[in-house]
Amino acid sequence: MKKGALIVISGFSGAGKGTLVKKMLSAYDRFALSISMTTRAPREGEVNGREYFFVTREEFDETVAKGGLLEHATYVGNSYGTPKSYVEEQIANGKDVILEIEVQGALQVKEIFPEAILLFVTPPSISELKKRLTGRGTEAEEVVNKRILRAAEEVVLMDRYDYILVNDDLDECMANAVKYIDAAKCAPVRNEHFIKGLKEELEGFSKGV
Amino acid sequence: MKKGALIVISGFSGAGKGTLVKKMLSAYDRFALSISMTTRAPREGEVNGREYFFVTREEFDETVAKGGLLEHATYVGNSYGTPKSYVEEQIANGKDVILEIEVQGALQVKEIFPEAILLFVTPPSISELKKRLTGRGTEAEEVVNKRILRAAEEVVLMDRYDYILVNDDLDECMANAVKYIDAAKCAPVRNEHFIKGLKEELEGFSKGV
Repeated sequence: MKKGALIVISGFSGAGKGTLVKKMLSAYDRFALSISMTTRAPREGEVNGREYFFVTREEFDETVAKGGLLEHATYVGNSYGTPKSYVEEQIANGKDVILEIEVQGALQVKEIFPEAILLFVTPPSISELKKRLTGRGTEAEEVVNKRILRAAEEVVLMDRYDYILVNDDLDECMANAVKYIDAAKCAPVRNEHFIKGLKEELEGFSKGV
Repeated sequence: MKKGALIVISGFSGAGKGTLVKKMLSAYDRFALSISMTTRAPREGEVNGREYFFVTREEFDETVAKGGLLEHATYVGNSYGTPKSYVEEQIANGKDVILEIEVQGALQVKEIFPEAILLFVTPPSISELKKRLTGRGTEAEEVVNKRILRAAEEVVLMDRYDYILVNDDLDECMANAVKYIDAAKCAPVRNEHFIKGLKEELEGFSKGV
């Protein structure tokens, strides 16, 4: 069985990441969602190992200490992180694990896990982004402005991603995501085992000549 | 019109690069072959600007001096090189320009032209490579051995390529080549103009807030 990959998806707020990820998960059996570890208490209906891995502060800190998280961050007193072991198990089972995460976290992941495939989702233009954010109708102008100012910070790190995924039409966007992931799997960084095999065969041959 | 890209194709002797390139050129209008510049005299039937750009030693050296070649090398007293201007014209016309070249030249190109897309063609294994080289029937054992020893030198630089293109079935191999090229075109390094556009829009917005 072919090994899976870790797919990190980031993008501007309003670019449609969430919708894209949901669609990928329901359309393809090959994708699985990464499950985060958190110190926050479970809410009603949440199941340990489904929405989150719920742990104590001690367990969380211990996991951090032994390098067991691909990235982690704290929001309003609660810590959240991505357990490396869960990702690795899924990948070993042939799943492409999707991690939807903001830019700083994505770059943390890339450092620890260089074979991660980083996709940055963006609308075709910022005017389109603004239109989508405003079109939701639920957001005050101030909130929309805040999101676009945040995009201005994120765009600076866009060139650290493997692929820019323009989300104009959702179906096309998903087809492209799959295409980029398939291509990225054929990059040397994700084929060290294959290259090693060739090298060993070639060494064996050289000795025989 | 969308800009084209420079596609550099290398690979082990016997991997089927030549056949692949011919097939890509005949199957897709979007591909064009890079034309080399050479100091060698034209042979009968060869046309300047079709097989090669035939130039004098002085013209060649002058082109090198002003950085006009993406790579160059000398074989048995004749110099050969890839004119940057021809590649750039074709790309501006929307063509994906294919340059079939050995590993050292490919890496020279990548240095001068970082947005070049580098594909490394290999059979699924070295035993398969040997079978293909031997199967040609025309090569003495010594020649086959020499080619495989050369592969042992080339494999070391395989990880500098963008994609490993396994040539098992030729049609599948071509389909994958196209897929990888399409994906690579969405990498940030090949979308500086798009990213710049987003940044400018965002700056304009930030000033307005």
